[in-house]
Amino acid sequence: MNYEYWAVMIAIASLAITGVLVVAPQNINIFAAIVLGIITSIGGGTVRDVILDVPIFWSQDLNYIWVALGGSLAAFAAHRFFNRRRIYNLILYLDALGIALFAIQSSHKVWVLDFGWPLAPIILGVITAIGGGIVRDLLAGRPTFLMDHELYASPVVFGCTLYVLILKFLPKYELFGARLCVMLILGLRSAAIYWRLNVPPWLILRPKRD
Amino acid sequence: MNYEYWAVMIAIASLAITGVLVVAPQNINIFAAIVLGIITSIGGGTVRDVILDVPIFWSQDLNYIWVALGGSLAAFAAHRFFNRRRIYNLILYLDALGIALFAIQSSHKVWVLDFGWPLAPIILGVITAIGGGIVRDLLAGRPTFLMDHELYASPVVFGCTLYVLILKFLPKYELFGARLCVMLILGLRSAAIYWRLNVPPWLILRPKRD
Amino acid sequence: MNYEYWAVMIAIASLAITGVLVVAPQNINIFAAIVLGIITSIGGGTVRDVILDVPIFWSQDLNYIWVALGGSLAAFAAHRFFNRRRIYNLILYLDALGIALFAIQSSHKVWVLDFGWPLAPIILGVITAIGGGIVRDLLAGRPTFLMDHELYASPVVFGCTLYVLILKFLPKYELFGARLCVMLILGLRSAAIYWRLNVPPWLILRPKRD
Repeated sequence: MNYEYWAVMIAIASLAITGVLVVAPQNINIFAAIVLGIITSIGGGTVRDVILDVPIFWSQDLNYIWVALGGSLAAFAAHRFFNRRRIYNLILYLDALGIALFAIQSSHKVWVLDFGWPLAPIILGVITAIGGGIVRDLLAGRPTFLMDHELYASPVVFGCTLYVLILKFLPKYELFGARLCVMLILGLRSAAIYWRLNVPPWLILRPKRD
Repeated sequence: MNYEYWAVMIAIASLAITGVLVVAPQNINIFAAIVLGIITSIGGGTVRDVILDVPIFWSQDLNYIWVALGGSLAAFAAHRFFNRRRIYNLILYLDALGIALFAIQSSHKVWVLDFGWPLAPIILGVITAIGGGIVRDLLAGRPTFLMDHELYASPVVFGCTLYVLILKFLPKYELFGARLCVMLILGLRSAAIYWRLNVPPWLILRPKRD
Repeated sequence: MNYEYWAVMIAIASLAITGVLVVAPQNINIFAAIVLGIITSIGGGTVRDVILDVPIFWSQDLNYIWVALGGSLAAFAAHRFFNRRRIYNLILYLDALGIALFAIQSSHKVWVLDFGWPLAPIILGVITAIGGGIVRDLLAGRPTFLMDHELYASPVVFGCTLYVLILKFLPKYELFGARLCVMLILGLRSAAIYWRLNVPPWLILRPKRD
């Protein structure tokens, strides 16, 4: 689908730009910026395709990497522009759109391949959307967002799970369901960004060893 | 083999539970608990299957993931129960059983596929048994157990090496050898847990730059 | 090519030795030394072959792992010898030769497979050359060299890019070009080691949030 193609391109550009901006305060050089920007944007999908044992998506259409490279260089060159509060906020919402599109497009791909239904579409949707950001954090020596309590991974988990339920029980509404779930993830993430929402305390472990 | 199937299920549940309990003091939320529990228990086997270029073991039988998910949620919900000293110790020995079963079952799989004999069965046995725990430590921002000196990886290396020698020189005793090596790894790990054994000092590097 | 085969063996031995020496001050034990030495030397090529979806190079010729194992054990056993200033410097230049050989041999392999031309030969050349060292740093809890500004990754990027340009515009000079690019990477790395060269400041991001 042409529509899907452009959506993924926007996702990749947004993820590459935020990928670089997030690590920029650590005074990275241009080579690190390129590596981290590309990994943030296409790392998760690469892991997905390796697990699916299908050709890596970017090996057949290098536009994905060109866009990731362009986004990384743009973020490096124009970081002052991107770091203005308004622009940075815009990019945060674009990043939310990026992970939403990536997650559902990826669940769809796993469903079409009939791979590990019904759990694998959720797992690989989540890996595609946030796996690249986790690897970037590891490489940059930052704590991964798994360990904080911002609503980042959880909206993706909800969205992909709902999409799998729609594919299972309402397959006629596949396309509508995909759009709905992208909106759901984007909405939850946007709310989390705007109101700085966190995972509720009763879903956080506070153990005391007896 | 039915016997082997259940053994691996016990391994996965134990590894998922210890996987969550180990990171629980860092106040993880439920989403991180699920991710880290699943990665600890099935991450190593996933890397093995990617290197072997065979279908990922859990993609064909999702019970593996359901068990990992159940173990993670159980550890999250009942962490007080699991953190009682006696229960926690029991889980530690189950974890030892888990890595022993995983290591030898994995060496066996690599041998059957005739992949990179005789080194790959050892390497991939070790990766399957402890690879998931290493990735969990990286994601949780903890030092990996590669850098401390507890007898954790080394019993697995011994057990897989002995198993490869048995397959090479006493192939008639393949099944007996597998059980013996599981017992050996379990015994060494249990001794290490009980007496807090470490790698002997002469096997630890203490360099002084001239 | 016999010549290429031995070149890669030298690369692997050098990378394994430096891999162990770099983490030696952290008082690693012999098992960690073996794991980290092997990962440093063959980890990058393993990731490359997984992405290419071709058989992992060491699965068909275990000499690669025997050499990596030998190098790791030699570095462990003789670390005092290797840590003498002159010997250590020699090893640094051998490491530079190792990554240069690995990078160009890998770009060549990707080109022959006609995979993701023209970007993938550069990306996978860089991954093969420095990916193992990055994973080693993660496992050892060290900051990865992505975050410092030594000329380490950048000479590899230059060399692989030039090699791709030669393959594109001067395919008749393929073999000469390969040797030239190995020399270029080795020369840039050697200059960086000798004069302690860093990435120039205008290629380093120093953001101020508005």
